Parts: sequence; C-alpha cells; structure tokens
Amino acid sequence: MLNGERKTPRPLRWAMVGGGRLGQVGYKHRCGALRDNTAFALVAGAFDIVPERGREFGVNLGVDADRCYDDYRTLFAQEAQREDGIEVVSVATPNGTHYQITRAALLAGLHVICEKPLFFTSREAYEIKALAAEKNRIVGVTYGFSGHPLLLQMRAMIANGQIGEVRMVDLQYTHGFNATDEVDRLSDAQKWRIDPQISGPSFVLGDISTHTYYLSQLVMPQMQISELLCDRQSFIPSRAPLEDNALVMMRYANGAVGRMWASSVNAGAMSSQRIHIVGSKASLEWTDVNPSELSYQVQGQPNQTLYRGMPYLDETCNAWERLGALHTEGLTESWANIYLKFALAIDACNRGDRQALDQLVYPDIDAGIDGVRWIENCVRSADQGARWVAFE
Amino acid sequence: MLNGERKTPRPLRWAMVGGGRLGQVGYKHRCGALRDNTAFALVAGAFDIVPERGREFGVNLGVDADRCYDDYRTLFAQEAQREDGIEVVSVATPNGTHYQITRAALLAGLHVICEKPLFFTSREAYEIKALAAEKNRIVGVTYGFSGHPLLLQMRAMIANGQIGEVRMVDLQYTHGFNATDEVDRLSDAQKWRIDPQISGPSFVLGDISTHTYYLSQLVMPQMQISELLCDRQSFIPSRAPLEDNALVMMRYANGAVGRMWASSVNAGAMSSQRIHIVGSKASLEWTDVNPSELSYQVQGQPNQTLYRGMPYLDETCNAWERLGALHTEGLTESWANIYLKFALAIDACNRGDRQALDQLVYPDIDAGIDGVRWIENCVRSADQGARWVAFE
Amino acid sequence: MLNGERKTPRPLRWAMVGGGRLGQVGYKHRCGALRDNTAFALVAGAFDIVPERGREFGVNLGVDADRCYDDYRTLFAQEAQREDGIEVVSVATPNGTHYQITRAALLAGLHVICEKPLFFTSREAYEIKALAAEKNRIVGVTYGFSGHPLLLQMRAMIANGQIGEVRMVDLQYTHGFNATDEVDRLSDAQKWRIDPQISGPSFVLGDISTHTYYLSQLVMPQMQISELLCDRQSFIPSRAPLEDNALVMMRYANGAVGRMWASSVNAGAMSSQRIHIVGSKASLEWTDVNPSELSYQVQGQPNQTLYRGMPYLDETCNAWERLGALHTEGLTESWANIYLKFALAIDACNRGDRQALDQLVYPDIDAGIDGVRWIENCVRSADQGARWVAFE
Amino acid sequence: MLNGERKTPRPLRWAMVGGGRLGQVGYKHRCGALRDNTAFALVAGAFDIVPERGREFGVNLGVDADRCYDDYRTLFAQEAQREDGIEVVSVATPNGTHYQITRAALLAGLHVICEKPLFFTSREAYEIKALAAEKNRIVGVTYGFSGHPLLLQMRAMIANGQIGEVRMVDLQYTHGFNATDEVDRLSDAQKWRIDPQISGPSFVLGDISTHTYYLSQLVMPQMQISELLCDRQSFIPSRAPLEDNALVMMRYANGAVGRMWASSVNAGAMSSQRIHIVGSKASLEWTDVNPSELSYQVQGQPNQTLYRGMPYLDETCNAWERLGALHTEGLTESWANIYLKFALAIDACNRGDRQALDQLVYPDIDAGIDGVRWIENCVRSADQGARWVAFE
Repeated sequence: MLNGERKTPRPLRWAMVGGGRLGQVGYKHRCGALRDNTAFALVAGAFDIVPERGREFGVNLGVDADRCYDDYRTLFAQEAQREDGIEVVSVATPNGTHYQITRAALLAGLHVICEKPLFFTSREAYEIKALAAEKNRIVGVTYGFSGHPLLLQMRAMIANGQIGEVRMVDLQYTHGFNATDEVDRLSDAQKWRIDPQISGPSFVLGDISTHTYYLSQLVMPQMQISELLCDRQSFIPSRAPLEDNALVMMRYANGAVGRMWASSVNAGAMSSQRIHIVGSKASLEWTDVNPSELSYQVQGQPNQTLYRGMPYLDETCNAWERLGALHTEGLTESWANIYLKFALAIDACNRGDRQALDQLVYPDIDAGIDGVRWIENCVRSADQGARWVAFE
Repeated sequence: MLNGERKTPRPLRWAMVGGGRLGQVGYKHRCGALRDNTAFALVAGAFDIVPERGREFGVNLGVDADRCYDDYRTLFAQEAQREDGIEVVSVATPNGTHYQITRAALLAGLHVICEKPLFFTSREAYEIKALAAEKNRIVGVTYGFSGHPLLLQMRAMIANGQIGEVRMVDLQYTHGFNATDEVDRLSDAQKWRIDPQISGPSFVLGDISTHTYYLSQLVMPQMQISELLCDRQSFIPSRAPLEDNALVMMRYANGAVGRMWASSVNAGAMSSQRIHIVGSKASLEWTDVNPSELSYQVQGQPNQTLYRGMPYLDETCNAWERLGALHTEGLTESWANIYLKFALAIDACNRGDRQALDQLVYPDIDAGIDGVRWIENCVRSADQGARWVAFE
Repeated sequence: MLNGERKTPRPLRWAMVGGGRLGQVGYKHRCGALRDNTAFALVAGAFDIVPERGREFGVNLGVDADRCYDDYRTLFAQEAQREDGIEVVSVATPNGTHYQITRAALLAGLHVICEKPLFFTSREAYEIKALAAEKNRIVGVTYGFSGHPLLLQMRAMIANGQIGEVRMVDLQYTHGFNATDEVDRLSDAQKWRIDPQISGPSFVLGDISTHTYYLSQLVMPQMQISELLCDRQSFIPSRAPLEDNALVMMRYANGAVGRMWASSVNAGAMSSQRIHIVGSKASLEWTDVNPSELSYQVQGQPNQTLYRGMPYLDETCNAWERLGALHTEGLTESWANIYLKFALAIDACNRGDRQALDQLVYPDIDAGIDGVRWIENCVRSADQGARWVAFE
Repeated sequence: MLNGERKTPRPLRWAMVGGGRLGQVGYKHRCGALRDNTAFALVAGAFDIVPERGREFGVNLGVDADRCYDDYRTLFAQEAQREDGIEVVSVATPNGTHYQITRAALLAGLHVICEKPLFFTSREAYEIKALAAEKNRIVGVTYGFSGHPLLLQMRAMIANGQIGEVRMVDLQYTHGFNATDEVDRLSDAQKWRIDPQISGPSFVLGDISTHTYYLSQLVMPQMQISELLCDRQSFIPSRAPLEDNALVMMRYANGAVGRMWASSVNAGAMSSQRIHIVGSKASLEWTDVNPSELSYQVQGQPNQTLYRGMPYLDETCNAWERLGALHTEGLTESWANIYLKFALAIDACNRGDRQALDQLVYPDIDAGIDGVRWIENCVRSADQGARWVAFE
C-alpha cells in the first residue's frame, strides 16, 4: 500500500526535455513523477521546441525561469554547473530525437527516462545500453500502462501455474482517431508520427503496439517469440510507407501462438488496449479501460472477476495499491507506479545496490530494446510481403 | 413480425437423418423446423446409427413407429412408396456421411437441409449443386446462427454505407471445452470430430469457423477474400493432424484485411462467437451470446447500442422479429428463422418462382460451397507452413 | 436435459381463449405449449374478440376451421360435445375477463392456464382455488419469465446457504415504452391496460411487477413479506388513477428488507427485469435480458459469473437445460419450461398423483393468488398516501 | 483541458488536520491538493492523534519537522505566528471533531476544506456558514466523487432539456465490506464510524449516501426534495442505533420521485455508486466504477454511451479534462478537480471577486449544509418508524 510517504531518501532533481503545452504525454510524465513529491522534484526543463513558449510553460509549472532552457544541450550544460543541478531527465520528444538526447544525457552523467519507442534501431539501443552501463546510469522507458497493479497479479498467477501452460497470446491496441486524414492535416502531434524521418520505420507498430507487447512480456517474462509475421496497411494512403493498421502473428518458443492487432483506424472504438492470455487450464484478460478488473476464466468453473485492492490478490500486486478497493484508479496511478520504480532503480544504482536493482521489475533499457526489436521484426516481415521471419 | 401464422400453403412433410438422442444438434433442427408447426411437420426419420434406439426416440417425438427407419436408404426408399411420403430431409450426421446422404436424397427427389461443413471437398459440393439444379431441388445448409435478425441489420447498414468502406474484418469463434483431452476419450460426439476419416480435413476450422465465416458473408455479401494465410495447431497432440486452434489472416479484393480465430482450447471462454466489421467511418460488432444487441460505433460520436425488436431497425431485420423488444430471443429463434427460409425456398422452388428464390437471403448450396472452400484454402495454407495462398 | 422427447403419455388437447393476431402474448403461449409437440396440441380456440379474424388466424395456425369458435362459451360448450374435445385451455385475454373465463372453464371440467394478474381481487382468487379443488383441476398462471433455469439455481443456492441469511431483496421491472402517451392513443393492447374497468386496480403493478414478485418467491420460497409501503404515480395524468410508475418498500418476517421499482416510463431503458438478493455472506443477481448468466458475489472473494448449461450448476437447474452451454436461450425456453410443468401438473392431477404434484415447482393457483395479494396490498398502501400496511 | 499549469497566482500554503498513515482518506486529499503543485503546497500539519506518529509521517511527506504539530490548536496558533504561515487547512478527522476544528480554523482566519458529513446538525452548519461569511473565508466540503467531469456533462444535458422533465431519481451507494462485524473489531477507522458519539446520528447515511445525494444535486441543481421517507436497519445488531443499511424514498417539488439505497452490507458488491436520472424523454446513468462512461438512453432510439474526453461533450465538462479520451481517469482526478476548485474559490474570495465565486460550481458550505439536512431528515423519518416527513 502506497500513501505518498517517501521510499527513497529524498526527491531526485528532475528535468524534462519536451513535454510542453501542445503535447499530451508531458502531463502524464509530470503526474507520474510528481505524484507524491517524494520521488522527484521538477527543477528544470527544456520543454518546448519554441524556447519562449517552453519558458512560459515551465514557469507556469513552478520551475524557476532561469532553469527553463532553450534546448537540451543548454539544459545539460548549465545544470552541470550547479551544485543543485539535475540528476535525471525525462525525454518526451518525437521519436527521431530520442537517441541523441539520451546519449547526451548519459554523457552528462544523468539518469534517463525516455519515451517509447526508444530508438529507431536496436543497434542504437544496444549502444546506449553499453554507454549506460559504462556511466553507471539507468535508462528507463515509459511504457506508461505497465504500472497498473493487476498486471503484476497476472504475472504472479501465470508464474504460479494458475492458467497452466500458455498456449495463445491475444494482444490488441486499437483506436479510431486516425480513421480519416483530418488529424494528419491539423495536429502537429500527428504530423510527425507519420513522417518516417521523425517517427522511424513504423507508425502504429511503434506508437501503440510496443505498449501492449511490453505488457505481454511483463506478465509472461519466460515467453519468447521465435517467429512472427506482420501484415501492415496504410488505409489513408498519404501515410505510406508508414502503417495505420497492422496485424501480427507470433509463434513462441514453447509452442504457443499469438497475435497482435494495432490500429489507429478502428473507427469508433473506445476500447483501446486488451491483453488476453490463454493457458491450458484457464485464461486471463485485462483491458486498459477497466484497469481495476481482471477476468480469470477457469475451464469448467464459474468465470471470475478479480478487483484491484482486494486482499485476495497477490502481495506483489497489492504492494502497488494506492486508493483502496472500489476507489477507481486510472492511468495516472500507472504512471506514478513506474516513475516510483524509476526512482527506486536510480536510488539503488546510485547506492550500488545491484541486488535491489536486479529484483526490481520495471521497464528498463532491456524492455526498451525489446520494443525496438519487436518493431524491427514486424517491419522486416511486412516489407517482405508479410512472410514469417525468425525473431532476431 | 412473425407470430406463427403460415407463410406457405401447408407444412412440408419432413424427416431427419441423424439428430438422435445422443447428439446436441438434432434438437436444434427440430426446434427450428417445428417452431410454429406451419412450415414443417416431422413425419419420419432415421434418427440414430442404432436403429432400435432411433425408433424409440422417434416415437417419443411423436413419429409413427413404422416411419422410424433403420437407415437413410430405407427411409428414402420406403417413403417414396407412400402418397404422403416425405418431401424434404435434414441431414444431421457426422461430416463424412453428408455427401452420400445428400446425394441419395436428391436422387430420391427430396429437398435437402444439411449440416455444416457441407462436404469434404468443393468438388463434391459443385457436383451436388449440379445435381440439385438438375433435380430442381433445394440444398440448404444449417448455419444455425445466421437467422439472428440483427445480422440483417448489419447487412443493411453496411449496404447503406453507414460504416463507410470496409477496412478490417475481425472474426472469432472460440470455446474452451476441448482444453483437455478428457472429452476426446469420453464423448462420442467429440471422437468423430477429431477423426479425419469422419470429420474431414479439419476440426475447428470446419466445426466452428465456417459459422462465423458465413456470418461475415451474410453481412458483407460484396466482400471477397483474395488471399489468406492460416496457421493451425494441435495443442492436444493426439488430435493431430486435425487442429484444435487456428489463426487466419485474410486479404480482401477491395484492400480490406481480416482475421479469424477459431479455437476449442480457449480455456474458460464463455463468449463464443464475435463478428466485428470496421469501416472507414464506423464499426459494427455483434456476438452470439448477446444476439439481441448490436454495437454501432461511429468515430467521433457517442457509441450506440441497437436492440432487437425496436422500430428504428431496418425493415429487412424486423421482418424476422418474433418476441418483441426486451423479450430475449436466443438460438432457437435463429434456427426457426433459417428453417422458415428453407420452407420459403422449397415452396418457391416447387412453384417455379425463380424470382422469389433469388431474392431470398438464406444459407443455400452456394453458402455451403463457400464454407468448404474456406476450409480448403485454410488447410492448404496451413499445410504449406502458414503461407499466403490465393483464395480459390 | 430436455430434448423434446415426451415427458407425459401424450400431448394434451389444448385451446386458447384470446391470444390472437393483435396481441403479443398469444405467440408466447403457443411457443411455450407447442415447443416439442409432445406436451400440448393446439386443437381449438376462440382467439379473437372479432370472430372472423380469430377464425382466419386459427386456420393460419393449423387449427380446423370448425374448431375456431366465436367466443369462449361456445368453445367450451361445443368442445364438451366431442370425444376428442379439449382438456385444457389457456386464457390470454384482458385482465377483466380472467375470472369469468377461468370459472367457466373449470365448470366445463377443463384445466386452466391463465395470464397474470390472475384476477382483480384475492377473494375471487380464493373462490377459484376452491372451485379448482372441487373439480380436481389445475389452474396455472403464466409468469412467463419464471421458467429460466438459472432461477432454480438461485433457489438452490439460497436454500443451500450459499448467500447466508437473506437481508435485502432488490427487485425491478421497468421499461420506457409508455414514457409518452402516444401509445395510449394508438395501441389497443395499451388502451385496456390503463382502463380500470378492464385492467383492474393497477397498471404497472399488475402488468409487470407481479412477474418479478413471483420470481422473488420462486427463488426464496421461505421469505414472507410482513409489511409493505407503496408510492405510485401517474406521470401521464390521463392514466390516473392507474399508475405508470411505482416504488415499493418491503419488510420481511425474518428482518430482511426489500424494494421494488415497477415502471413503464423509465425512458430509454432496455434492461427490463432484475432480481438481486443480498445475503449475509454473498449476493445473487439475475436479469431477464441476460438470462443465461447469474452473478454470484461472495464478500471478500472474486466475483463469479455462472453460465447456463454448465456442469457445475445444481441438478434442479440443469434438469431444465435444453440447448447446451454457450447456446443462448431466451424467453421462448422459459415459456416452454413452464408449459411443460403445466403438462406435468395436469398429468399428475389426472392420475391422482398428489405426491408428484406437490413436488412440482411451478406457477400454480397459489402463485396467482399471491400476485393478486401483492397488488392489493400495494394499492391499499398507495391509496393511503404511501403508508406502511400489514401484508394481508 | 487541464495540464498542470497554474490557474491561480501561486500555490496556497496548506495544512492538514488528520489524514495520517492509518486512514485512507488523507492520501486522497493530498493527491487532490498536490496534483500539479500549482494550487496548493503542503507546508504544515497535525496529521495524527498520536503526535509522534504524525510528525514522522509528515516528515516522510516532505513537511518540515517543526511544522508537524501535536494537535490542531497548536497548528493554528503557531502558524499564525509565521509570515509564511498556512492560509488554508483541510480537516480529515472523525466526524465528531469537524465542527470544533472548522470553527477554530475560521477564527484563526483560515480557509477550511472539511470532510463530509460536515457536522452533526444543520444548526451547527448554519452557524459555521455565518462565521465563514463574517470572516470572509471559504468552507469547502470534500465530496470527493463530485469532480468527475462527466457529472458536469449530466448537469449540462439535464439543463439543456436532453432528458425532458425529471421524473425519477435512482441513487445508490452500497458496498459489502461490513457484511460481517469482523471489521468492527479490527479497524480503528470502522470503530469510530459506528460510535454515535464520534460518528453522529448515522453511519451509512452520513458516511456514504451524502456523496451520492450531493451528486444528484450537482447534476440537477433545480430539483428539491419536498418529502422523504427512510427505513434504516442494523443488520449487525451491535451497530445499533446506527444503521448499516438504509432505504430512502423521495418526493420532489416538481412531482418527481426518487429513492436511495445506502449500504455497507451489500455482500460481495464491487459496483459501489450509481446515479440514474429518468426524464420524460430519456435517462442518464453514471457509476463511479466506470467514471469515464455516461449512459444516455433516449426512448425509441439506440442507447448511447458517451466517453470522457471526446469533443462532442459539453465544454463545461471538457474544461476539466486532463488525460484525453481513452486514457482512464480515476478518483484521483476527481479529487484534483475539486481541490482546484477550492483553490479557485479561495483565490476569488481573497480577491473579493464575488462574481467569479458565484459562478464556480463546487462543493461549498451550502452543499455541506444540504448533506447534513439530508441526514437529519432521513434519521427523523427513520426514527418515526419510516414515515414520510417534510424535508426541512
């Protein structure tokens, strides 16, 4: 049970690159990091590509005007001069800048929390992993849905054999907000997402399916994809070569199979993200629109619904409980949980507590690498006409 | 609005082959055919592979003992001798016998209503189609879920452009009753389904996915699959080469894509069958466990739920309304509707009313052929290691 | 498991009074009675207040024209002359005629199945009960929702102590089809319902709440109301003195409390009827729009959903199973079940098998009397300004 | 759209009385007040009845040890000495202390935010209202569910006539956590709630039904109860005279009727709070477990579900939007919204901007008074044996 009391000695001095007024994700980072004011303190930032707008924005958040910088380079350089300079930075900028900013931050001795998809290529990701190790710094990835406590319940139940052996993995992250191309013309946040120079080799595969793919890894850490096949489409032709819809089939090393549907043209859909794991004895299903409920269906028994915050849940789940049963938690709590994990990871790293770090389940650099690999393999298959490819 | 009043001059004299006490589907045929006693009258049968058990059963249903025959050959031969002999026969036997019984019935001058999957091969199906044409007889196929009125609402809405152009077709028919092999050992009805000699080239693809595939054709008659890819598994190894789980991807001629999940090992699932069509403007979704509700989701508008029996529905839907809004209909009504359509088709055929016949939307021999083709293409793809194949 | 095989020696010769083309309930009677053609055979009727329309209708159902009578008196008189005359009659006419027709039928030696609410007064009902006893005939009441098998599961679970002691009974039957007075002007079926001369002392209390009240008695036979309080309204003033909305509070002899909301002005509602029983350990909830699901909520445990047709259900529930799990049953099956019970009751009565009769749980004359008493007590309370009255 | 940027010139200096480690509600206050660090800053507190525990707790939240006081009197006295002393205090203590603490705070010149139910009697509440006016200070009440944006959508739709005239108000707040008396023995938070000396004249009526009653006032400000009737029970006898279950019937001045069910013995219930308003044309329904969905049911049209964050919602609703459509908000956002409103009210009050204050819809002292009156009237009716009483 979390109630805001500190879990680390003091709040970490934290800055953001990006996450300004026009984007939606910056607020989620701040809600997560600043939830209880005991893990992070926002003390600086380069919030916006337009410096003056970013400065005004930062001041409105309570940041000192002279610590609202024009760009990330100045941010890192100036803060390095201060005794009370930042220790960790979050990167909430378009995909194409993640690599360079993360690299610069690590070189400046900072811990980094970066948006997904981490980078364009796994080669870049492995390079950054090596750099982080060399600098003894953490790189966390904001798979923002992964902090919902019931996902840890799923993880515990699967590990405990409560569904038997996994046979089928059914993943979905779809919405319909790009069913027409109106948003492509109007929204800056959308424009860069469909520009391969900025977005990278994919649109919905990177933008949304990486979330759900990570959830599947989180709840089934032992499962490995051996082969996959991806068919992707650009139903709005101007988005080509980037896809607005993609279907993936997976084959796992243990003989299980799976599928993913990622789409931004699922017109009218308000159901979003779903993860459904079928075992030899039972199934588990969770959706992000009802994150406080977990469906557990044992063959031959009444179907069960488990509720967040109840004493019958696994202690690894309830450790992240905040509001109590019947009191609805949302995406904010999920972000708060992963940011608290980042703080715990940074603290352990700073203390050199390798054991604590190894035991902490959080979206780390390896999770970020896996997301990039997922995209790479999907794109490689799709570009061969949707053929099976070995998962590399 | 249907209330049981006759739609044809008199009830057709009807017999069943199979459908005895130990199977589950026979009762559905009788519920459908005999719903109002104005379309069909059950006057004879060869209900069971064990003649005496079949005779006792038939008598318990109210059939004269001397019209309960030992086998279908005797049934057809003896009834042909009577002035009041049967006019139409339903075939509710294991798959491997459909072809020979249907052929014999047509040769005996009978109309035929046959269980799905119709036959083992499309070659057989085309041959039967030619024979039926030659004999001027109807062959109907009991896609038993296809009589739910809201499916016709979906059909009308798609035809009217209410979802825009179809982009994604998401089909599912899954259950978990075969999650273990217990039922393989205990149930006669299951045993033959996993024996290729009797069941044919597939298990769940034929046994269940043909239903959902037909529903997709029913609601989108204009959509044609150009290519598909099927990956099938035998999670219970003793079922090999027949699959207990299958994933299919489809590509349609208009550029739409689709997928199907058929499974009898979806452990714990009580949700069964789902058909979800995504268009460029909106989506429609229907499930067989809530057949009186249709979800209509227009991008950018509140989601809508349409209810069976309401005046706002299309007249082609409400023509098949029976109980009135709020009064729950179930699978029985669906069967009653398709059997009434069979009666209307037979009557039109008997009267030589080609126009009436052509306008009637019902699961006819072509729908049966398409189901067999669906299976053939899926199996062909699967047997090539789940490669894309042109839909033949 | 029911599959249509006879449960009684032969179908009973059955007629209907009322239930013609313009009403909705007649079809439900026929669907129930004729479900399998093994319990009842429709051989005569006085289907309509307009004789010629009734005759045409009866012929369309397959009844001989000369057994389609002008009125119930002729029906009873003429059929009494025949060796193959009717044995049982169903009364599906406006409320105000139930008493006289039932009385005449009993005097003619017939078993009677009558629509609810049975009569205007409990005095009439007790008189008819005595007459039925004297004539050794059954009077059944068509609480048409009471045949859903999961209600017997609720009954068994409550009897078995699976919810503990009953504390709160929450009943609801509401719809919105009378939200405006349009239907009052257009529909004959509605016109008589709001005319106290024909409908009796209540509208929604009698028309719909009696259904749900009976369901509560069915699932909790031991629970007795000691006091109640009813507040009723006529939101469409022209319906006064009859109510289109009513709220009731109940106090039970064991200390439990309850409430009922009956309404025909619950604008937009498509949820209909709900029965929710709270015990000291757990709750049960069932709705008629999802009759194949039963919610079982044990305090401190995951919530459970039980599904019709599953082996884990009580045998008293599964005895009435027809289609099998996952195959949706609807209101037709419920009517089929109560009509089959009527046939079993009539058969036991005819055979003088008192024990079989006493063990049969079905909506008998006592259930009909209780429904009338429910209305009487509600109306008495309401007419005193919604004061508590002892349940008489 | 809220993104954390300041809405007032600077964060208010804020303290808490109560809300320590052992209670659950304190964290909700802090999550609400400190959401964006732009409305409030937590600088002092008397967090716990056990001073040392409270001090340790405060320090763990980041409060200076020397501003963690032993009790509220010391808090108010010492802070009044400081130039940077607190401006506003939240009272999150057992009910019986609300009056004295609020009074002391106002006398100390502080704005007050107090838990519900505000006080034991409306006399006290009116007195405090007068004192607040005299001191020109705000008294806000933490009806913590009332900040969910879709409630403002309901309010706008009802005001716009989208459901017609209100006819029926159906309110519910039930849970089952007190189904047994185990919690009465184990939990301090429960013990005081069933002690009339500390809890006041009611248990569930005050503890939970006041929330839902306020929601009904929020969405229908024009509706006034003229009479009500309340029947309350103590199913766990040791809780008497305080009730663990209560049923209320309401009559409104406009002829509408209503009901409320409040319970802590609804065993197994995980559904919590529901508000359902039936108008002459349509109904609206909202629950706190799915706060991002609003059901809108127009008679004769497909049912609609409106989703939080969508452009089609009223601007008074979307003004409080934070995370964007499909991104689940929970109870935290509701608290954040009402605390932001408190900050806006305090700022307007401080500036003497009466117009801004009058236009702000938030749970103010009048809402607190109404909650107390609600309880008083319910208790008065119940204590007369559940008779109708005029709403005073």
